Amino acid sequence: LTRFKLTIEYDGTGFVGWQRQDNGPSVQAAVEEAIRRFSGETVSTLAGGRTDAGVHALGQVIHFDLTRGFAARTVRDALNAHLRPQPVAVLEAEEVAADFHARFSALERAYRYRILARRAPPALERGRVWHVAKPLNVAAMSAAARLLVGHHDFTSFRAAACQARSPIKTLDELEIVRAGEEVRVHARARSFLHHMVRNIVGTLALVGEAKWSAADVAAALAARDRAAAGPTAPAAGLYLVRIAYPAMGAGQAPSARRPTPI
Amino acid sequence: LTRFKLTIEYDGTGFVGWQRQDNGPSVQAAVEEAIRRFSGETVSTLAGGRTDAGVHALGQVIHFDLTRGFAARTVRDALNAHLRPQPVAVLEAEEVAADFHARFSALERAYRYRILARRAPPALERGRVWHVAKPLNVAAMSAAARLLVGHHDFTSFRAAACQARSPIKTLDELEIVRAGEEVRVHARARSFLHHMVRNIVGTLALVGEAKWSAADVAAALAARDRAAAGPTAPAAGLYLVRIAYPAMGAGQAPSARRPTPI
Repeated sequence: LTRFKLTIEYDGTGFVGWQRQDNGPSVQAAVEEAIRRFSGETVSTLAGGRTDAGVHALGQVIHFDLTRGFAARTVRDALNAHLRPQPVAVLEAEEVAADFHARFSALERAYRYRILARRAPPALERGRVWHVAKPLNVAAMSAAARLLVGHHDFTSFRAAACQARSPIKTLDELEIVRAGEEVRVHARARSFLHHMVRNIVGTLALVGEAKWSAADVAAALAARDRAAAGPTAPAAGLYLVRIAYPAMGAGQAPSARRPTPI
Repeated sequence: LTRFKLTIEYDGTGFVGWQRQDNGPSVQAAVEEAIRRFSGETVSTLAGGRTDAGVHALGQVIHFDLTRGFAARTVRDALNAHLRPQPVAVLEAEEVAADFHARFSALERAYRYRILARRAPPALERGRVWHVAKPLNVAAMSAAARLLVGHHDFTSFRAAACQARSPIKTLDELEIVRAGEEVRVHARARSFLHHMVRNIVGTLALVGEAKWSAADVAAALAARDRAAAGPTAPAAGLYLVRIAYPAMGAGQAPSARRPTPI
């Protein structure tokens, strides 16, 4: 068996999410069908990051095994050829060791959330941003965000459906950056609870609109009650940006591997 | 009569272009229909910049007249409400003097062209970039671009269908910038010939791929023959970014007006 790791970009708009579901097309089904058509093998893929319906990925990571050997760049190019009608692209394919696991080997996930803060609705970025028709106070959002960074019980920002064993996570980064008419939230952690980024963004937006203070956010966190925090921000603004893994050799620092050369 | 100036953003993908045509939906028809539904008046709009089928706009400018008076922000918000199903948004509405003309008052047009230069096809930016699956040499493209800046006969970069009286234009800016996996071309001139930006980009891409030298581009320009230059780059990568006008008061510098406050 040869294990392959893929780094994948997709527009989540028309999908029920990464994961196969009965109620519509999933990115997983599209990718597994492309693997089947390319290799003749029926495989199950495993993904490193959660993306719900409508959530996008700039760097989702998955793994799967093939009985036949292929050059990694052949895998990448053949999958892209078979995926062509779909808004899914394989950025990078690598052959990895048999103990590599897209989910359990991951050291860190990075998400980005894009808010378009202007009066006019999005035309070009429709489905790719959350439209908030009011100006947002980025400095106030940043101050509130700092209260959420670190090791906390994030029950207040956890979806009811979340299956994580513990609500305690370490949020390593939560930065708010203005980019033209957009306000972007950068979040980084080893792992996240279900809807955690969207629930945090929905809460910070209340601060940006001056409906909530930073103290209200601290109180919401301390309440350990989902009802105490703000609403869930829409899926369309969320991007899984990157998943970091240990370097290929043992005992090395987290990888900053270059994409397969063209 | 009250004359209104609108600044409009649109995703050109599903349109035959700005201008009304028999063969499909135009942005112009969508905007005029929204004006009719909002105001009850049937108007003809006039645009400041050309956008062909599939070309996008971040700042198209149009004007039209209404017999009834409306606050500019009411015009903007009402049009956005009526345009909602379409990927067209009114960024700004202003009441202007009766002699303002979106096309003839324009001092300068700015276009951007986006090339995605990587092996994998675009997933998220599908329809918004030109995908070139090879690395591009930006320094070589920049050197060639500098030969095109200035006052020239651009016949070699002019579409056969171009209706401009003269092929002589002054290209004020032609900059090539790398932005991650993208190569962006920024072009600025008082006015452009039909397909001029796309024909220039198609030619500079040959330089970026090392198929052409800067001297080849100089020879193509000097030939004054469309067949001497490179192919027309696809519409999907082109954006009409901005059209500049004189300030509202007489005798002032070109306007850098702020959008209508929210």
